[in-house]
Amino acid sequence: MFLEPYWMRHAEASAVVVSGWHRMSYRATDGLFQSVELERCIRRLHRAVGNAVADDKQIVFATGSMQLINALVYALSPDSNSGSTANVVATTPYYPAYRTQIVLFDSREYKWAGNTSMWAKASGNSTTKEDVIEFVTSPNNPDALLHQPVVVGSSAILDHAYFWPHFTHIPAPSDADVMLFTTSKLSGHASSRFGWALIRDEKVAKRVNDYIMQNTMGASRDTQLRMLAIFKTILANLHGKEDIFAFGHDVMTAKWRKLSAVVSRSRRISLQNIPPQYCTYFDKIREPSPAYAWVKCEREEDSDCSDVLLKAKIITRSGVWNDASSRYTRISLIKSQDDFDLLLERITEFVDAELTAAGSNSM
Amino acid sequence: MFLEPYWMRHAEASAVVVSGWHRMSYRATDGLFQSVELERCIRRLHRAVGNAVADDKQIVFATGSMQLINALVYALSPDSNSGSTANVVATTPYYPAYRTQIVLFDSREYKWAGNTSMWAKASGNSTTKEDVIEFVTSPNNPDALLHQPVVVGSSAILDHAYFWPHFTHIPAPSDADVMLFTTSKLSGHASSRFGWALIRDEKVAKRVNDYIMQNTMGASRDTQLRMLAIFKTILANLHGKEDIFAFGHDVMTAKWRKLSAVVSRSRRISLQNIPPQYCTYFDKIREPSPAYAWVKCEREEDSDCSDVLLKAKIITRSGVWNDASSRYTRISLIKSQDDFDLLLERITEFVDAELTAAGSNSM
Repeated sequence: MFLEPYWMRHAEASAVVVSGWHRMSYRATDGLFQSVELERCIRRLHRAVGNAVADDKQIVFATGSMQLINALVYALSPDSNSGSTANVVATTPYYPAYRTQIVLFDSREYKWAGNTSMWAKASGNSTTKEDVIEFVTSPNNPDALLHQPVVVGSSAILDHAYFWPHFTHIPAPSDADVMLFTTSKLSGHASSRFGWALIRDEKVAKRVNDYIMQNTMGASRDTQLRMLAIFKTILANLHGKEDIFAFGHDVMTAKWRKLSAVVSRSRRISLQNIPPQYCTYFDKIREPSPAYAWVKCEREEDSDCSDVLLKAKIITRSGVWNDASSRYTRISLIKSQDDFDLLLERITEFVDAELTAAGSNSM
Repeated sequence: MFLEPYWMRHAEASAVVVSGWHRMSYRATDGLFQSVELERCIRRLHRAVGNAVADDKQIVFATGSMQLINALVYALSPDSNSGSTANVVATTPYYPAYRTQIVLFDSREYKWAGNTSMWAKASGNSTTKEDVIEFVTSPNNPDALLHQPVVVGSSAILDHAYFWPHFTHIPAPSDADVMLFTTSKLSGHASSRFGWALIRDEKVAKRVNDYIMQNTMGASRDTQLRMLAIFKTILANLHGKEDIFAFGHDVMTAKWRKLSAVVSRSRRISLQNIPPQYCTYFDKIREPSPAYAWVKCEREEDSDCSDVLLKAKIITRSGVWNDASSRYTRISLIKSQDDFDLLLERITEFVDAELTAAGSNSM
């Protein structure tokens, strides 16, 4: 049923193409658009890692979690006949695609309504809970901290792209009504474009699924098959010698430790504070291992932090964190070891130059 | 760069996952989101088949041509600051996803405006060409006939999903400003979700690409790699013993010939008329080989044709062809040989019953 494997091996390729139309068709396992076996693996992984309660949720597959951003807002917005418009918000600094997607699709049922701060204040006033859809990225991109919804009574979408033990401690399984995950940040298979939503309410899940079917008629079954193999490999190695999370945590911790050591010598730049925390997956206090460093320039004259660092050939990501002060910028730590080593070298030079200058000044 | 092939074979799977993050990332060939080699194959195939002028067009990949429906309407609609709204239309009977997608996304920049008939009449009046976006499916789904835009001066989107020599004669290469294609109907790989648009105007292509990036961050690179292998196989066999189009044409012609022979004995049901036509690809007059039969119930009392056939256990697709008379219904011929044989058997019984009854009546 699912991705006729003999296609490329079969001598009479063309015969397979046409006679196999019905069997290849749009379906995966048992005539469904989603592989049942892959769903099972996803539930097993959440259970084993302890990062989300999946067993009482619907799973909807998508072409990356990107696709689910607008799909979920569509599903959580009022019906097109109601005449009301949902307000979509997030807390600064937030992942820019929430805003850019809502603006691009420009639907009559919802609109981008900016930072949560004004909505958190307004709650209890004219704002009702149906009015607000809040994106909460936890751990957050860019600052890597765990977050909770701040608008009381909003429909919250918990984007847990980074909520895996290589990037954060897992204090307890997340049990939000709507959660997002992606292989992009689980195993690094960003280009495979595979994400999934865990959704408590069946009607919401159905609306998300309707959207995905209308938008792309599901997620590629080639991708689903590849993801199945990847999930099985990850599952087979949990807590073993080849545990992806233990390995990932080691790699990311080493990067953070080195970066922190260099930056701690500086008074010109600083990093977000992430304390060591108890992690249920590793069953121990673990060192921080964020995907991103959220750098602050401390000097008054360094108001454009990204530009200050760029002059020292340190490339960061700025300008996309709407409403966030330009005094902050993001350094990505999910890059190759070579690129990280070069980054560390340049930051070391930047800090050394600061200390040398400070030394000269104090003479 | 493109889909680290050693992932599943490598003993230290987890090591690959994390250290390979940067290389796997989101990119395909040369840091681009689209495989340059696959683009080349698509251009070669259009040139070799002679169904579209691709060389002066931009190619945008998508998760099936489904995704391109709304992406193209977005790209061809007025800017969100202009205050005007595009009217999206198609000629009855048309593929239902044009309407359902426009209704679902419910954008402020465009709206579904129904059948072309009222717009064709209105042209020259208050309607300006910027106002209308016309979907033209050619060959059409459901009636399998070649079509041209009918609203003068509209932005036309030529959906050429079925414009391949196994389904239709190719009179000349299509050279429309905006064209859609999909592997779903080229080779039957519907579940791979791969489609592409050929677009003349660079600005329109850029807007479509922006949409695809925002919506799903491109098409799955696993899928792109698989499609590359499939295109290479198809290209290597053109006009040879394993030519997909010659094989497909033989299979589809045989089905149409058998179905036509049975239905021609009936006065209760009829099929659309498709004459044999000269095809530039085969360089000969070819027999018809449509993907769908568009069945008409001729008796006045058979106003719900689908229901009439369902009573004879013949499953057709109806109810989705907005504004089309329920006197018509669609039979799919792109099914397995077993399913087709069963279909033919039941239609034969249906026609035999009609003739037996007619014989009794005339006694």
